[in-house]
Amino acid sequence: MQTGNPLKKRPAGVRWEKGCAFVRVWAPHAASVTLVWKEGQHTLDLKKAELGYWTAETRQLKPGDLYYFSLDGGEAMPDPASLSQPRGVHGPSQVTDLSFSWSDQGWRNPDWGNYIIYEIHTGTFSESGTFDGIGEQLDYLKELGVTAIELMPVAQFPGDRNWGYDGVFPFAVQHSYGGAAGLQRLVDKCHQKGLAVILDVVYNHLGPEGNYLDSYGPYFTDKYKTPWGRSVNFDDAYCDPVRRYFIDNALMWLRDFHVDALRLDAVHAIRDFSPLHILHELNHAVRRLSESLDSRKYLIAETDLNDTRFIRPAAEGGYGIQAQWCDEFHHALQVAAGQERVGYYSDFNGLPDLARALENAYVYTGQYSRERHRYFGTSTKGISGDHFVVFSQNHDQVGNRVHGERSAHRVSFCMQKLLAAVVLLSPFVPLLFMGEEWGASTPFPYFTSHTDKALIGAVEEGRKAEFSYFQKEGAPYPANELSTFQKAILNWQEADSGRHKVLREYYQRLLQLRKTTPALLNYDRASVSVMCEAKKGVLIQERSYKEQHLYAIYNFSGNPHEVRLKREIFPLWVLLSSSDRRWMGQEDCFLHYDHESKLTVPPESVILLANYHVPS
Amino acid sequence: MQTGNPLKKRPAGVRWEKGCAFVRVWAPHAASVTLVWKEGQHTLDLKKAELGYWTAETRQLKPGDLYYFSLDGGEAMPDPASLSQPRGVHGPSQVTDLSFSWSDQGWRNPDWGNYIIYEIHTGTFSESGTFDGIGEQLDYLKELGVTAIELMPVAQFPGDRNWGYDGVFPFAVQHSYGGAAGLQRLVDKCHQKGLAVILDVVYNHLGPEGNYLDSYGPYFTDKYKTPWGRSVNFDDAYCDPVRRYFIDNALMWLRDFHVDALRLDAVHAIRDFSPLHILHELNHAVRRLSESLDSRKYLIAETDLNDTRFIRPAAEGGYGIQAQWCDEFHHALQVAAGQERVGYYSDFNGLPDLARALENAYVYTGQYSRERHRYFGTSTKGISGDHFVVFSQNHDQVGNRVHGERSAHRVSFCMQKLLAAVVLLSPFVPLLFMGEEWGASTPFPYFTSHTDKALIGAVEEGRKAEFSYFQKEGAPYPANELSTFQKAILNWQEADSGRHKVLREYYQRLLQLRKTTPALLNYDRASVSVMCEAKKGVLIQERSYKEQHLYAIYNFSGNPHEVRLKREIFPLWVLLSSSDRRWMGQEDCFLHYDHESKLTVPPESVILLANYHVPS
Repeated sequence: MQTGNPLKKRPAGVRWEKGCAFVRVWAPHAASVTLVWKEGQHTLDLKKAELGYWTAETRQLKPGDLYYFSLDGGEAMPDPASLSQPRGVHGPSQVTDLSFSWSDQGWRNPDWGNYIIYEIHTGTFSESGTFDGIGEQLDYLKELGVTAIELMPVAQFPGDRNWGYDGVFPFAVQHSYGGAAGLQRLVDKCHQKGLAVILDVVYNHLGPEGNYLDSYGPYFTDKYKTPWGRSVNFDDAYCDPVRRYFIDNALMWLRDFHVDALRLDAVHAIRDFSPLHILHELNHAVRRLSESLDSRKYLIAETDLNDTRFIRPAAEGGYGIQAQWCDEFHHALQVAAGQERVGYYSDFNGLPDLARALENAYVYTGQYSRERHRYFGTSTKGISGDHFVVFSQNHDQVGNRVHGERSAHRVSFCMQKLLAAVVLLSPFVPLLFMGEEWGASTPFPYFTSHTDKALIGAVEEGRKAEFSYFQKEGAPYPANELSTFQKAILNWQEADSGRHKVLREYYQRLLQLRKTTPALLNYDRASVSVMCEAKKGVLIQERSYKEQHLYAIYNFSGNPHEVRLKREIFPLWVLLSSSDRRWMGQEDCFLHYDHESKLTVPPESVILLANYHVPS
Repeated sequence: MQTGNPLKKRPAGVRWEKGCAFVRVWAPHAASVTLVWKEGQHTLDLKKAELGYWTAETRQLKPGDLYYFSLDGGEAMPDPASLSQPRGVHGPSQVTDLSFSWSDQGWRNPDWGNYIIYEIHTGTFSESGTFDGIGEQLDYLKELGVTAIELMPVAQFPGDRNWGYDGVFPFAVQHSYGGAAGLQRLVDKCHQKGLAVILDVVYNHLGPEGNYLDSYGPYFTDKYKTPWGRSVNFDDAYCDPVRRYFIDNALMWLRDFHVDALRLDAVHAIRDFSPLHILHELNHAVRRLSESLDSRKYLIAETDLNDTRFIRPAAEGGYGIQAQWCDEFHHALQVAAGQERVGYYSDFNGLPDLARALENAYVYTGQYSRERHRYFGTSTKGISGDHFVVFSQNHDQVGNRVHGERSAHRVSFCMQKLLAAVVLLSPFVPLLFMGEEWGASTPFPYFTSHTDKALIGAVEEGRKAEFSYFQKEGAPYPANELSTFQKAILNWQEADSGRHKVLREYYQRLLQLRKTTPALLNYDRASVSVMCEAKKGVLIQERSYKEQHLYAIYNFSGNPHEVRLKREIFPLWVLLSSSDRRWMGQEDCFLHYDHESKLTVPPESVILLANYHVPS
């Protein structure tokens, strides 16, 4: 029927190799496809190939050239697999040479268990809002102690202000961030500094403005609904080139941009009943690439399904993804810290659920969820802790508040330190949200720069409805206003001042502890035990490795609490107290430590004890 | 939050036990639920229980009483879990005592591999169109040699003429068929005669008329689309009572009606992304029931997904269903027998695909399907042949033709015998469609007895569109006309006359062979080998068990073909030739058998050879 597997041929798009442009576009219902460049002065008719692909090879089209496609002689449209959109989502695509002079030959992607992730929104991380702006702060991040940065999506989106989840050209790097070369420079520099790079990619939907894919072919299906519009066609008629398109996209970041891991956005909205789920197939492809590069690459899934099928190995019927985000850990933690039980927080009871999360990663492992109106979740038994990424804040949890409030805006200084400790001393892979470590005063509201007025209005209405339970806090900032975006830009001056600096040094100390303490790097969940005294607001987590035992004693309440410790765990060393003068940034609170058998834990604080001496 | 698991309590509906009526209905959004009976003379307010259930117990409501429910004082509606609708789908429900004096204590459900299935539509199988009408023909079926009957769905549907897939009361047995007691009598009689009973149940949709479920609660979801309307809510909010409803339904047939196996209609239209798929959960429940009854019960799935997840064991990530229907075997076989390659037949090339089907069950195990516009299917490696149910005809394949034509209307008498042999000598579980064994002259067109005029018109239009590729054959019979239904009623007189009788005796001989020949009961697919000479129209299948080897030589062409046999397989015994005088019903065709090394196989015929002597 065809010669060779057409899905194993060159990826779609215009690929520049050895002085020649290889052109490939998928348009299964077109009768003709024409490449148009030099503002229409040049045209080239593509040849029909298998499965609805159209191809051409030409030496006339060169890097930097702007081009369009025209289907059946119709309107010129950008390339669905464009590598660059220098004039935005509605403009022409640009031929881009992805070759780059890499200097990261010495780089080795660390074991996944060593990842400590720092999530970054490129546009608001620095004043310049570019990849180079991030590159200037790598020494800061190294000193802080994180081991990986995670970039929120960088695929070309409408305008120049967006969280990134409205991207419409999955292969094009946002031009205002610095484009493909800018991203390559950043990854190269990260690797030189010893930092890994995770990229957030969106395969469950495309943005609402500038999405030309539908004009080319059945990239979407009406079989399923997603909260963000039409579902990507992963299992309906014509799905193979669509599946290939997204798999090629993943492979491009890992191969051509040297990215170390991909964070797959909202995979619960990827609907695929194929025998081989697209994530399973993607995982196979990434493994093959890792082998061919002799370099490990990781996949991380965002999912709210509490279903271990994503992270179980293939032999056990899973998709073999390395790790998944664990929102329930966040929700339980925030309620323990005083978050009102509204909206999705209403399913969480605070400390007992936080204890469950520390033991099981998921809070819901089969119980009835009132918010979901169903029994929910599966057991995580037998799955080690490094399969879960946890956080006390992230772009969503901050940004999906009415005014994009961080924890720093909502909880006390002491409580911020408590939250940090729970995350960084947990048996899971921790993630920080940029600026969290100094309690940044800048909010992270939702922002866009759409041009379609009806869409702008619809987004506003949608967000009001979504967060109606926060209504008493007023209306959200208007997403499409420049000022909303500007509010989110980090103020690096404050990072070094007063309490901000104290908090930052506290995070630094926790990160240092995590990286140097074997018991904290042990992801065997059987080695973790949690005791919860919910009425007192006290939670004690024990973590062990061989003869090493660590006890984190958290007091979430506003009162000091005396904790009696088992005799056998002495002698103890205090490794860290969030409430002593060094970390309080004030001198009126001291640790009361009775060497006999009891400890007084100050309000909203954590004490970390060990049965061995670690030099501070 | 609740005491005990509310899903483990009594099933919904009115259940009569020990002189008391236990009433339970799920209406999660109602503020009050009232039971109304004796034409409104009696009412009883139900009490709110967990998960949106409402319950009551009363000794005033007795078997035979007609009743309704009223939600929030609104219109009276029948019970979603009604056991009987004596006045049709819009009428009241009737309290029904399911206790029955069973006399099948000696019955043992045979091993699944011994099933030879005979599919029956109750309404057209006999003149009376009732379960008792089937009961009168059990001796005939025993003599024919099948081991199980499979009843097309019997759940209450609108009117009294319907294939059964428009059922709207899954727990009520169609009143015009004889209701619950009629079905119990039939099953009991089958078991006494040594026949198993399979019931076809529809859990992927409900019919379009008389569906009151939506007025009670969110039984349906808009998350997914099915070809037959809204998707059953198996994984959205409030799904647990819906899941329980269908699982209870399955258990009721197996427990209270002594049904031996369920055929699950179109499970590809069951959309469920839960960690535990509803079919997997159902299979668990059926296994538990089997253990408690000390009697095996089987689940069979109709699916067109070519995905072994349904039939693989749970340990290998499957749902553990016993067997699945295999439509592709049918399609390949029919094209081999001359079916034009239109519609879904266009993906099949006849003999080579039939050879694939005989070897792999699925024809598509990963190749590109033009009709589906995608690469399709998975390997069936390691899955034994008894996981697949095959047929040359069934209600759908016959009924979904413009005029409900059976093979007997379309292919020669010789070819009918060839088709029968391919199915009955295959390494899969065979299914016959009622009347097929005598080449019934009655068609099996699609028929309904809806009362909603708009619906009647929509169904007609829908069917015309669905079978547009058969357009040159004229318009389908009008589904809602009485005469269309009447055309389908089997004419038992003809079964004993002329060629009809010859064909019947031929089927009988094949069934006898299948049941007594170890090589034919061997489902190990490694023991099957198939050789295809497509140009000649010849296909040779070898089946083995220990020292026993059988060769079925099929000639699909209109010309005689000489087949050279390997020397080592002699001496051979001819077990059966479809073309000799006994089975031809005419005397002008003889088997030419050269004892040296070659055989002449007459046109459109099969010769079955063995390396051992079986007395005929």
